[in-house]
Amino acid sequence: MNKVAVLGCGVVGKGIVEILTDNGAGIAKNLGEEVELKYVLEKRDCSGESFAEKVIDDINIILADEEVTIVCECIGGVGIAYEFIKKCLMAGKSVVTCNKHLVAEHGLELLAIAREKGVSFVFEASVGGGIPIIRPLTNCLAGNRVKEIFGIINGTTNYILTQMSQCGQSFAEALADAQRLGYAEADPTADVEGIDACRKICILADLSFGHNIPPAKVKTQGITAVEGIDSAFAASLGYAIKLLGHTICDDDGMVTTFVAPHFVPQSALLANVNGVMNAVVVRGDSVGECLFYGAGAGRYPTASAMVGDIMDCVRHSDGCRYIDWGEEREDKQADSDALPSRWYVRFEGCGHAAMAEKDGQKALITESMSAYALRESFGEDKILSAFRVLD
Amino acid sequence: MNKVAVLGCGVVGKGIVEILTDNGAGIAKNLGEEVELKYVLEKRDCSGESFAEKVIDDINIILADEEVTIVCECIGGVGIAYEFIKKCLMAGKSVVTCNKHLVAEHGLELLAIAREKGVSFVFEASVGGGIPIIRPLTNCLAGNRVKEIFGIINGTTNYILTQMSQCGQSFAEALADAQRLGYAEADPTADVEGIDACRKICILADLSFGHNIPPAKVKTQGITAVEGIDSAFAASLGYAIKLLGHTICDDDGMVTTFVAPHFVPQSALLANVNGVMNAVVVRGDSVGECLFYGAGAGRYPTASAMVGDIMDCVRHSDGCRYIDWGEEREDKQADSDALPSRWYVRFEGCGHAAMAEKDGQKALITESMSAYALRESFGEDKILSAFRVLD
Repeated sequence: MNKVAVLGCGVVGKGIVEILTDNGAGIAKNLGEEVELKYVLEKRDCSGESFAEKVIDDINIILADEEVTIVCECIGGVGIAYEFIKKCLMAGKSVVTCNKHLVAEHGLELLAIAREKGVSFVFEASVGGGIPIIRPLTNCLAGNRVKEIFGIINGTTNYILTQMSQCGQSFAEALADAQRLGYAEADPTADVEGIDACRKICILADLSFGHNIPPAKVKTQGITAVEGIDSAFAASLGYAIKLLGHTICDDDGMVTTFVAPHFVPQSALLANVNGVMNAVVVRGDSVGECLFYGAGAGRYPTASAMVGDIMDCVRHSDGCRYIDWGEEREDKQADSDALPSRWYVRFEGCGHAAMAEKDGQKALITESMSAYALRESFGEDKILSAFRVLD
Repeated sequence: MNKVAVLGCGVVGKGIVEILTDNGAGIAKNLGEEVELKYVLEKRDCSGESFAEKVIDDINIILADEEVTIVCECIGGVGIAYEFIKKCLMAGKSVVTCNKHLVAEHGLELLAIAREKGVSFVFEASVGGGIPIIRPLTNCLAGNRVKEIFGIINGTTNYILTQMSQCGQSFAEALADAQRLGYAEADPTADVEGIDACRKICILADLSFGHNIPPAKVKTQGITAVEGIDSAFAASLGYAIKLLGHTICDDDGMVTTFVAPHFVPQSALLANVNGVMNAVVVRGDSVGECLFYGAGAGRYPTASAMVGDIMDCVRHSDGCRYIDWGEEREDKQADSDALPSRWYVRFEGCGHAAMAEKDGQKALITESMSAYALRESFGEDKILSAFRVLD
């Protein structure tokens, strides 16, 4: 029998414990064997919990217990979580995590240890929460050359942008609502500055293109520059503003990865993904365009993906064999400012004819050009805001 | 090395040959080993083709060749395809197919043979063409209790319904266009009567609920009863008409499966899936609602899914361990006419107040009720058309 240890029993950890308990029979039937929760590592007092007798506070008990074959990390961050995961893998245990920060920063190293030890290091929940995306991408679509991936991979910012466009709220009002509803942290920086989305698109790019893309190398623009008037212009021009993680691989294998608000045509499904929901579009040479949609966060959706990963670890006791990538290739990373696209530009008088005017301000959609050409064409000081148009 | 035989070299078979050739290096890198096409079984003259030297016309050559570990069936139908697949599995070869007719009718038997022989019988392309749906459902979402699946799983009928609603075409005009564009067969019965969608929803129900649902037991209504005026009422009431395969499992494990046109609220992503595109929604107890969207047919999308399956067979040389279901359970199948839902009803004078009127005809959306209650409430002879509303 496979025994599981859960590290950290906050929102997601508790969800895993619940699913393993409540759906235990179904899981056992599917796998042909039982999966038993043996330990919950947690320093806080859990004496009132149904799983109280399984709570321990020393990782060494887990490391030394050969019955524990699978460890679920729900601690978060890259400090103690990184240290514990590394130790667990070194001890020959498969590890499941939803920690995108850790996967984006240390995935390459941890995958190598897992490979060496013949165990799994899997992280379906690290991108898109409950949405199946990593396994479909690396398994079902593995016969494709992936050309492009873009998606709404941060629910907090999608909630804020939805409120701005549908309810006319300002950024500050929408953020305050998001915080009140528990969709945004007290310090919302990682979400609103695009840092969270950056980690996730890096993981998808790593997996699709085969070499490590460090988040620090990725141009990342959040949504703090999106003003109410941009939302209004978007609506009148037939678009919705969405913060997208975006990665493109050209025919020479050059990869351009960036995070930025995009003007998404209202006819695209992605423009209709609202509130805290997430969706990822994959463009492959054979499959064309696929979209994967669902809840990008939350206790049960995230735990759903992690329990799926636990089951995958059970099925592949010799280690998962399709999630992997190689060392960084600086020669394969392209500058996103050189990538041509059409742009939405809100500008002040500079000889360009406006396509729309509102409150004395002007906006237009350009022909396709690089960011460099855009700045040259308008003059950097004349551009009040500029966002890429998704084609 | 794993060697592959492709049975039948029509539209999809040729796509597989092309992908295996053109993406061979990428596939080998992903798998850590090469996949070589050894035979193409085809009776027609292929002398002008690049793979002409691999063409044979005797299945026994494939059956006797131990180097061939994986067979891709692209013949179609349940005659010779069934016979060949059975022989290949019995000979210890994994089989990949896109043949929904065969999987829905004979999947149970063929999976049992595969299990006994320790090989894979996989069919990702049988539902939703290139869209990853079977593996995400059975693997990533395996920790969930699936409660409901519904989707647009026939591109031909979705094209016709889209044309009717967006261009005001009649059913006959839209069908003629679909045939001219190659989206519909000369004999469109299997598509327009919902038979194709029925096979696909049965496969998803089999996989999700664990017992065989024979297509013959599933109430299946196609789109021939949808009239232009229903499309017009749908638009004015805020809906789109979509042909959905639909399966629901209640808390007691009773499964209701049916195929019928539905009124889908325009705010739902599914209402915005147009033309020949497909999309499937899965509702699970943990993950909530997920949607999977993409091309449901066509050479390369279908071949993309089948090459993904070939790669899965290579990775699981001891047989795929997560796609399976059991014998039919008549005691677990519920009558779809007893399933309550709201309904769109177009009717003639019977004491009900219309919510919309057009060309002297009346329509309304009911409260939730069974089909039996609906017929009793209106009088069967007063109902001109009635379609379920998706909630």
